[in-house]
Amino acid sequence: MPDLIEPRTLQGFRDYPPALMIPRERVLQTAREVYRSYGYSPIDTPALEYAEVLLGKGGGENDRIVYKFKDNGDRDVALRFDLTVPFARFAAIHVPQLGTPFKRYAMGPVWRGERPGQGRYREFWQCDFDTIGTTSNAADIEVALVINDLFTALQFTNFQVRVNNRLLLNGLLESIGVLDKAAPVLRCLDKLAKIGREKVIEEMVREAEVTAEQAGRVLILAEAKGTNEEILAAAEASFGGPTNEKARAGLQHLRELIAAAKTAGIPDGRIAIDLSIARGLDYYTGTIYETFLGDLPKIGSVCSGGRYDNLASLYTKQVLPGVGASLGVDRLLAAMEELKHPWMTGQNTPAPVLVLNFDSQYLGQYQRIARMLRAAGIGAEVFPEVKRLKAQFEYADKRGFKAAVIAGAEEMAKGVWKVKNLTKREEVTVNEEGVIDAVRIAL
Amino acid sequence: MPDLIEPRTLQGFRDYPPALMIPRERVLQTAREVYRSYGYSPIDTPALEYAEVLLGKGGGENDRIVYKFKDNGDRDVALRFDLTVPFARFAAIHVPQLGTPFKRYAMGPVWRGERPGQGRYREFWQCDFDTIGTTSNAADIEVALVINDLFTALQFTNFQVRVNNRLLLNGLLESIGVLDKAAPVLRCLDKLAKIGREKVIEEMVREAEVTAEQAGRVLILAEAKGTNEEILAAAEASFGGPTNEKARAGLQHLRELIAAAKTAGIPDGRIAIDLSIARGLDYYTGTIYETFLGDLPKIGSVCSGGRYDNLASLYTKQVLPGVGASLGVDRLLAAMEELKHPWMTGQNTPAPVLVLNFDSQYLGQYQRIARMLRAAGIGAEVFPEVKRLKAQFEYADKRGFKAAVIAGAEEMAKGVWKVKNLTKREEVTVNEEGVIDAVRIAL
Repeated sequence: MPDLIEPRTLQGFRDYPPALMIPRERVLQTAREVYRSYGYSPIDTPALEYAEVLLGKGGGENDRIVYKFKDNGDRDVALRFDLTVPFARFAAIHVPQLGTPFKRYAMGPVWRGERPGQGRYREFWQCDFDTIGTTSNAADIEVALVINDLFTALQFTNFQVRVNNRLLLNGLLESIGVLDKAAPVLRCLDKLAKIGREKVIEEMVREAEVTAEQAGRVLILAEAKGTNEEILAAAEASFGGPTNEKARAGLQHLRELIAAAKTAGIPDGRIAIDLSIARGLDYYTGTIYETFLGDLPKIGSVCSGGRYDNLASLYTKQVLPGVGASLGVDRLLAAMEELKHPWMTGQNTPAPVLVLNFDSQYLGQYQRIARMLRAAGIGAEVFPEVKRLKAQFEYADKRGFKAAVIAGAEEMAKGVWKVKNLTKREEVTVNEEGVIDAVRIAL
Repeated sequence: MPDLIEPRTLQGFRDYPPALMIPRERVLQTAREVYRSYGYSPIDTPALEYAEVLLGKGGGENDRIVYKFKDNGDRDVALRFDLTVPFARFAAIHVPQLGTPFKRYAMGPVWRGERPGQGRYREFWQCDFDTIGTTSNAADIEVALVINDLFTALQFTNFQVRVNNRLLLNGLLESIGVLDKAAPVLRCLDKLAKIGREKVIEEMVREAEVTAEQAGRVLILAEAKGTNEEILAAAEASFGGPTNEKARAGLQHLRELIAAAKTAGIPDGRIAIDLSIARGLDYYTGTIYETFLGDLPKIGSVCSGGRYDNLASLYTKQVLPGVGASLGVDRLLAAMEELKHPWMTGQNTPAPVLVLNFDSQYLGQYQRIARMLRAAGIGAEVFPEVKRLKAQFEYADKRGFKAAVIAGAEEMAKGVWKVKNLTKREEVTVNEEGVIDAVRIAL
């Protein structure tokens, strides 16, 4: 026998065994259904692209973390590190035919050669939705609604979508004379929840070269607490009324968002204005979103995004403003695990029913009854081997089956089936017409 | 403005725009549901693995076509070129905990740097299901049932699952004294449908170094036509009765498969024994499967697989026999396009209803009614911009919406909505309680 190869995954990569994959598929399918219900269309793009397409011409900061190499045709290629850049490239090619507004979602793995850590992998799933080709605030408002409906469909009740607006932040920065330092100021502000007000002010002074007084004014606004209306009023007051045009537009967009969400039936308090949310990326220019789980805020935002002025400027002269957000699938799964979310059942089978196997001559019968259950929407596995009942029940137990359907020579002769509730360990004998109902009761 | 980067995909790669992606998602979701209904569990493995894990220690023939490179940590890594090798590595790690039998499905892209061609891409999707850890023919029989139920769920009616058994073929080869030449003989036989009997005999003589008489005997069996029973009888006769142990076992397995499928309710003629199917891979050792669309046989098999003796011998001493098949997603989509399958609608929206936008002050109302429709299971998009009705209807037309929900100032004042069937161009006015029913009628 030749030497065995050690069966291992790369550092920072992981397998999804069934107990993790079953919930992941459920999360993705739920996201798919919610996105589709709002009219977002699915697209997909290749994992591998020209390095230039993904990274631009200069060596940006993504260069370090991207998997790039020369293919056999000596092309410089790279694995996508997010779904946004490929979407921009896609939009430059396809939007002229597809027209605008264009709403898309995309789901798939992305790759980043970063230091892996708890819950952080080098391959992880993103699940994005965006509306491009419109500056209308209606698209921004919708993003908040989608996030609400998504987490509701994911069976969370205690969560909050926090919104802010870069125009408002920039208006504030303009009104205190530090608009040219917006990027570093907002990067510091983004750390407020993590490092606290004093450290943020220190950092702003050091990194963004603003005065402590200016940093303080940013913080006063960012820390505004209260109802959405109170925060909006505080924001208006903080720079002497809505005289700054940017700030006025940002305030107006937030006001419309809150009002429309209320009318559309989103529960009170679900969407909360939080002026401390800045999002690190320079790229955002309007509304920004983060989503926090009330029972696990420390895990950070599980769905984030924002409005941007121009998606595809690297590739096309067509100006494509847009707005969207991204569900962090692996972070969410980690949260669901920690919160013992009802979908984290540990079950290893997607089918709840096991048909036991007494004799290979009955295999056609077992598959016939199983197909009857499947046609009724109930998953049913036929145990493939004729083994002792004990072994088959142990298998059922290990996998997490809920019910067993049983027939040996005696039952076959009588034309009946036993249906066993594997949780309660109770059994009924029914004729064939009764099997589906009996199984439904046992599940 | 800096120079634009040309927005292009790599040669042999492609985007999936909505009109292609909507059917792809439907195909994948259908496969998922059928696999799950039989108790196959989802798993996923990384796209990127140690090159050694994917390619073994020697430089095999896959080396040429595989995307491999050194990552930033100087590891030799490669992109998976199928889902079987990663499954073998996965099984070596996880099956000790998961136990056997273990049934899994996996779906995802794989990468091969082969010459691209019509319908052949360097990134393409596979969609595999397998049962491992059992030699029971029940698992083989189930594979044929799954394929039947899968293509039925994919709304094909005219298709055939062709089955054969390597044991039978090997028994024949043994009985005519050429078992040691099985691999090249079967590779030649595999071309029968493509190049015809005379050329196959020529090739067998040349490549496999058998006599023309021996090749002829292989062909006589391979070309046996008739009902499954007639073919089984011919096979038995062709080597003087079932005296060869391999052949007897192969025949017995095929007989059981045909009988159990009939009992389980698979339509007559759907599963057909075809002794000419050999499948190129050395790797198969028992039942083999190919699936042909009756209306487009020339596209080749759209779902193929077979039984193998030991999945993970490269990585573990645990012997893992198994059986499974793989749906060729991209080939199937190409076939569906050519056959004008009902799922290839060209629709660019997954939501059938468009709520028109008359005035941004009503946006909350539009989203409220849209959320009502979504809660009733009907996808509804709200047009984000206040545009001329003509432009909104053109958008509806271009995307393929089926119905529009319309309310301006007048309707809002009266508390009514107009529902328009966009196909028939007919409109009704209903009060709010009537909207869902009116939309259902219009779809």
